[in-house]
Amino acid sequence: MRTLNQRAVLDRLRHVGPATRPQIAKDTGLSKPTVGQALLGLEEAGLVRAAGRTSAGPGRSAVVYEADPTAGHVLVVDIGRQRLRLAAVDLTGAVVARRDERNRCRSASSLVRTVRQLAEELLDGAGLSLDSVITKVVGSPGVPDSGNRALQHAPNLPGWGRKGLLDELEAELGAGLMVENDANLAALGEREQGAARGANSFVLITVGTGLGMGIVVDGKLFRGAHGAAGEIGYLPYGRFDEAMLLKGGLTPPPGGMLERVSAASSVVELAAAFGMAEPDSAREVFDAARAGDGQALRAVELVAVRLAFGVAAVTAVIDPELVVLGGGVGRNGDLLLEPLQRALHGFTPLVPSIVEGELGEDAVLSGAIAVGLSKAQQLVFDRHLGSA
Amino acid sequence: MRTLNQRAVLDRLRHVGPATRPQIAKDTGLSKPTVGQALLGLEEAGLVRAAGRTSAGPGRSAVVYEADPTAGHVLVVDIGRQRLRLAAVDLTGAVVARRDERNRCRSASSLVRTVRQLAEELLDGAGLSLDSVITKVVGSPGVPDSGNRALQHAPNLPGWGRKGLLDELEAELGAGLMVENDANLAALGEREQGAARGANSFVLITVGTGLGMGIVVDGKLFRGAHGAAGEIGYLPYGRFDEAMLLKGGLTPPPGGMLERVSAASSVVELAAAFGMAEPDSAREVFDAARAGDGQALRAVELVAVRLAFGVAAVTAVIDPELVVLGGGVGRNGDLLLEPLQRALHGFTPLVPSIVEGELGEDAVLSGAIAVGLSKAQQLVFDRHLGSA
Repeated sequence: MRTLNQRAVLDRLRHVGPATRPQIAKDTGLSKPTVGQALLGLEEAGLVRAAGRTSAGPGRSAVVYEADPTAGHVLVVDIGRQRLRLAAVDLTGAVVARRDERNRCRSASSLVRTVRQLAEELLDGAGLSLDSVITKVVGSPGVPDSGNRALQHAPNLPGWGRKGLLDELEAELGAGLMVENDANLAALGEREQGAARGANSFVLITVGTGLGMGIVVDGKLFRGAHGAAGEIGYLPYGRFDEAMLLKGGLTPPPGGMLERVSAASSVVELAAAFGMAEPDSAREVFDAARAGDGQALRAVELVAVRLAFGVAAVTAVIDPELVVLGGGVGRNGDLLLEPLQRALHGFTPLVPSIVEGELGEDAVLSGAIAVGLSKAQQLVFDRHLGSA
Repeated sequence: MRTLNQRAVLDRLRHVGPATRPQIAKDTGLSKPTVGQALLGLEEAGLVRAAGRTSAGPGRSAVVYEADPTAGHVLVVDIGRQRLRLAAVDLTGAVVARRDERNRCRSASSLVRTVRQLAEELLDGAGLSLDSVITKVVGSPGVPDSGNRALQHAPNLPGWGRKGLLDELEAELGAGLMVENDANLAALGEREQGAARGANSFVLITVGTGLGMGIVVDGKLFRGAHGAAGEIGYLPYGRFDEAMLLKGGLTPPPGGMLERVSAASSVVELAAAFGMAEPDSAREVFDAARAGDGQALRAVELVAVRLAFGVAAVTAVIDPELVVLGGGVGRNGDLLLEPLQRALHGFTPLVPSIVEGELGEDAVLSGAIAVGLSKAQQLVFDRHLGSA
């Protein structure tokens, strides 16, 4: 009973904000003495602190309590082929440290070590350490495979599929590690504070170095039977030799047929094929297209047709209420959305709403923070008071 | 309280079978007098009847009670382009009448009238009527649209998409009508008593005159945001003119790109193109292939490649644990499965289990019976005892 009351008081302070003892009593339905007792226990456990006193109004001023944001911290990491992004947040979700680095690693071992080193530096700068952080959430391409303790289907990260990879990551980052598909986290991020706020069932298609999708159904991640739901890089696409297929003589490209023709490298290849002088990156192609470069625009439009193919396929299968586009390529909605929608009508009469994500490159971290906070708030409470 | 006890006793008799008063008391945890009272009320309401007496064992013989199967009946109808199938079942699900006719209707009005006439004849033969049937479940291609009261996306049934069609159907069949997508019902049927028994998350792909899919997630139908989940006839497929798509100058074929190349008419067209002499139906092509006809076999294999494309797309999006093939074309698993699986590996590394459905042409009716019984049992109880 005491634990339940403490939880009610803490939830009130976390979700509604700082309050006095009478305000808490009113909002929770608990008696003022019960609230007082709960606050005492929460203060002793370091979960609640006095934030000041009321000044206005009649009568004596009263103590205002708040959930102590420093009662625990969460580390979030977004591992991409191109970039490594890290952040540390306190229990209110306020970012206390942030880092964004180019990913130059060529092997899984070096990537795991680099993530650890960056995390340590990040936390050190905020007066924290890997040990003091309660929950760590890592977003990565691929499908977490709990049997082999690896990330399957992430060909852009060499060695990521090797047995025990998740154990190596845990050995470096320490206890409290959660690993989740990056597109899944991005979907949760856009739902928490982006373009999918209020959407109960939607998909986030992320197009960057790779192609992926996070699916939310009834407010929850939909993972499929083996965690591979949304791996739309593997959508079959284009021309194929039926006779060779029947002989069993064909192998799909790493990352899948649709990823091969619609991710960042295709933007660059198409632009070069149309005559654009040596584009280095998809970003360069989009910038040129935005400036009116005809060759870049043609490349962007062709990629839009291929993404329309992907959207048409997803819609025929799960009929989402909303499609959010994200990722380094996908977030160029100003250039992609219009040709994508035009092409879509040529593929199918089932046309969903399609919008650009609002969180840009922060989508994965935002989702990781949402997942990590929920877990950490539970853990902090259980650790300090749950067994009481 | 009395209603709850009656419900418990009735559920025991329905789901476990006939029993004596002491047996029911033991299984429900109710006292013997309470069971006696509940049985009395259920008998008076016509929901339970004495089925005989125990003969063996020591002591006096006891009355054996059973749920009265004649307390209500369910009418189920499977409307397809080629066939109209109807059945009437009692409250235990036992089929009391069955009818299977060729669908010769050319218009929605004539189809609605024909369904009514067949239903009346069927019920009349079993001493029932449309009024006496409690629940009617109609399975049909298309997506029920409650706004327009029509069935959208069913191009094989002309006029089926016109506003008010569902009202016309209800006017003919009377109260208690439920209309559900046929692939959805087939999926429920295969789960209830076919190839998907025990599968919590799977898809049933039905290939016949059209192409459709029912999706079951966590034991329940997954319908998508507008009821169009599983409309995989609309999967984009094959070659397309990217420039024309970008101009907005293309329109997909009725039924969709993948339906166009993989449903029954394609089997016939391909076989004819390969030189088979005037095949009349997909069934004829499959029969010829089974007898070793090389031209028919080539047609069947090509359709298998296209279905592999569909399975690959479905798997990339929702990662099902099992794919069940059904429908007039799909149920030829002996010919389709092997080339389908070979081709699948050329499209994607994500390869689910694929099996043929076990219910054949009865799949839709089986699902309709499951849905109808559940509804009817609830209704019968509420009508007779729910307000007590």
